[in-house]
Amino acid sequence: MFFRFCLTAVVCLIALECRADEATPRFAIVIHGGAGRISSDPAHRKARGEVLDRVLHDAKQRLADGAAALDVVERVINTLEDAPQFNAGRGAVFNAAGAHELDASIMDGRDRSCGAVAGVRTVRHPITLARRVMTDTRHVLLSSDGAEKFADEVGADIERVNNDWFSTKPQKARLKQIQAMKRPAAEHLMGTVGCVVLDTHGDIAAGTSTGGMTNKKFGRVGDSPIVGAGTFADNATCGVSCTGVGEDFIRNAIAYQISAQMEYAAKSLEDSVHHMLHHPRHQISGGIIAISAAGDITMQFNTDGMSRAAADSSGRHEVHVAE
Amino acid sequence: MFFRFCLTAVVCLIALECRADEATPRFAIVIHGGAGRISSDPAHRKARGEVLDRVLHDAKQRLADGAAALDVVERVINTLEDAPQFNAGRGAVFNAAGAHELDASIMDGRDRSCGAVAGVRTVRHPITLARRVMTDTRHVLLSSDGAEKFADEVGADIERVNNDWFSTKPQKARLKQIQAMKRPAAEHLMGTVGCVVLDTHGDIAAGTSTGGMTNKKFGRVGDSPIVGAGTFADNATCGVSCTGVGEDFIRNAIAYQISAQMEYAAKSLEDSVHHMLHHPRHQISGGIIAISAAGDITMQFNTDGMSRAAADSSGRHEVHVAE
Repeated sequence: MFFRFCLTAVVCLIALECRADEATPRFAIVIHGGAGRISSDPAHRKARGEVLDRVLHDAKQRLADGAAALDVVERVINTLEDAPQFNAGRGAVFNAAGAHELDASIMDGRDRSCGAVAGVRTVRHPITLARRVMTDTRHVLLSSDGAEKFADEVGADIERVNNDWFSTKPQKARLKQIQAMKRPAAEHLMGTVGCVVLDTHGDIAAGTSTGGMTNKKFGRVGDSPIVGAGTFADNATCGVSCTGVGEDFIRNAIAYQISAQMEYAAKSLEDSVHHMLHHPRHQISGGIIAISAAGDITMQFNTDGMSRAAADSSGRHEVHVAE
Repeated sequence: MFFRFCLTAVVCLIALECRADEATPRFAIVIHGGAGRISSDPAHRKARGEVLDRVLHDAKQRLADGAAALDVVERVINTLEDAPQFNAGRGAVFNAAGAHELDASIMDGRDRSCGAVAGVRTVRHPITLARRVMTDTRHVLLSSDGAEKFADEVGADIERVNNDWFSTKPQKARLKQIQAMKRPAAEHLMGTVGCVVLDTHGDIAAGTSTGGMTNKKFGRVGDSPIVGAGTFADNATCGVSCTGVGEDFIRNAIAYQISAQMEYAAKSLEDSVHHMLHHPRHQISGGIIAISAAGDITMQFNTDGMSRAAADSSGRHEVHVAE
C-alpha cells in the first residue's frame, strides 16, 4: 500500500513538473527583423534566416545558463546591428541627405527604467548607448548631437565608427530608387530589429534598434526610440518591441497599450497584440513581438511578412523569414 | 388637474435643464503653468495670475462663440509662450551651453492625430510649429536641426526669432546659481505650460510647451514633445497635459495611461489622475491637468504647487498660483 502511494506520488510529481515546464517556460526569447514586404531575393532571405537562427541558438544557451534578460537583449541586438541584412547599425537605410541616423531604446521590466537615443551617427551599437543612457544618466532620451556628445563622455565602452561604416550597396540603391520616384520616404521592406526576453530569474527586458525610413528628412523621430510606443517592458505584464510605420505606434502608445490592456482589462497577451494590429482606430501597419510574464510568446503582423524567431526552455525553436 | 400636470412637467424640464447644464458643460478649459516649488516673489506670482486670468477670459469667450478646441489650445499656449513668467517660449530656461531649446506637442482628440517638435531654437511659438508637423507632414516628431529646417520650409506662417529673444534675467540668474552649485540640472520652479479644451462641438484637444530643465545637456528630450507621455487627447475618453520630471512621465506613458484607465478599467478621470500621481510604481513628481469627454475638469499635483486655471460653460472660473 505504502509502495503504491509512493509510486503514485512520484508519477504525480513528474506529471506536475512536465506540466509546469510546458505551461510556464523558465525562459523565453523572441526576435524580429522588421515587418513589411518580403524580400524577393532568396539569397537575402537565406542570409537573414541564418543570422536569426545563429543569434537564437546563442541566446538560448545563455538564458539556460542563467544570463540576465537585459544582457541577452543587448547582445542579440548588437549582433543584428552588425548584420548588414537588417535596417539597424550596419545595413541601416540612408536618409534624404545620403547619411545614416540611428535610433534605439531599451527597457528593464524590473522597475520600468529605460534609455533611448535618437539620430546618432557614429555609434556602432546604438542599443548599447541607449543602455548607458538608462544606467549612467537621469534621462530617458538623448537626441542627435547631444547623444553623440554623451557617447564621447562614456568613452571606450562605446565603439565609434565613421558614418559610412553603416552603408551597404542595397540600401544605397534603394535610396536612389526612391528619390527617382520622388516619394518622400519609404515604408516598405523595413528591417528594424527588436528583441524581448524573459529570463530564468523572472525578469523581462525589451529593446528596439533601427535606421528609420529610407529618404527620411527633418530629423524625423519614429517610434523606435520612444518608450511606450516602440518598446515597453514590465515584469508584471509583458515585454514588447514594435516595427512598422512609427507615427501610428506613437499616437496610439502601442507598446505600452498592450501592457495596459493586460493590466486593466485582463486581456491575454495574444488578444492585446491582435487588438493593436486590427482595431480600425489604430490604423497601424507593421508587426509586434511580445512575451508575457508567464512566458507566452506572440509574433503578429498585418503586413505581407515579418522576419522573426522565437525559442523557450520547453524546446521551442523557430525562425521565419519567408512570410 | 391638467394645469397641475403641466406645471409639474415644466418644473421638471427646468430642473433637468439646470442639471444638464451642471453635469455636462457645453465647453470646458483647463490650463497649467508648471508644477514645482512656489515662487517666493509676490510680484512674479501676481503677474502669473494676471496672465492666466486674462488668457482664460479670452478662451472662454471664444469657446462660447463656438471656436474649435485645437484653435483655442494653440492660442492659449501662444500667449503663455510670449509671457516671460513661464518656462515656454520667451522666459524659457537656459541649457548648459547658455542657450534655449524648446519642445512642444499638440494632439487632436477627434482622430488622435498629433505633432511635436523637440529642441527648436528660433521658433517663437513651438506649439504652432508642432501643429504644422501634425497637419503638413506624415510625421509626429521632428527634432532639432530637422525641425528648424521644416520651419524654414513652412515659411512666413512660422515666426522666427534669435535665440536670445527667449532670454530673461531671472532665468539667466537661475542658470548661474545652479551651475555654481554644480548640480546637473534643476527640477524645481518649473514653468512648462499646457492646455486642454473640450469645445461646444464635443471635440477635445491638448497641448504642452516647454523650455525643459535649466542646465540640461546632451540633447535631453523630456516628456513634453512625447505624445502619450506629456500630452494625449481622445474624444472617447479625455485630454491630458502633464508637467514635472519628464523622464518618469515617459517610462509610465502617463498621459496615455490616464485614457487607458478610463477605457479599460472604467475609472473616473479624477481617480485615474490621482492613481498616476500617487501609485508608488510611477514615482512621478509633477502635475496633471485633464478634461473628460463629459466635461469634468481635474487639476492635480504632488509638488508644493502648480499654477493653474479652469473654466467651463456652467460659470466656473478659477485661477491659482499660490499653491
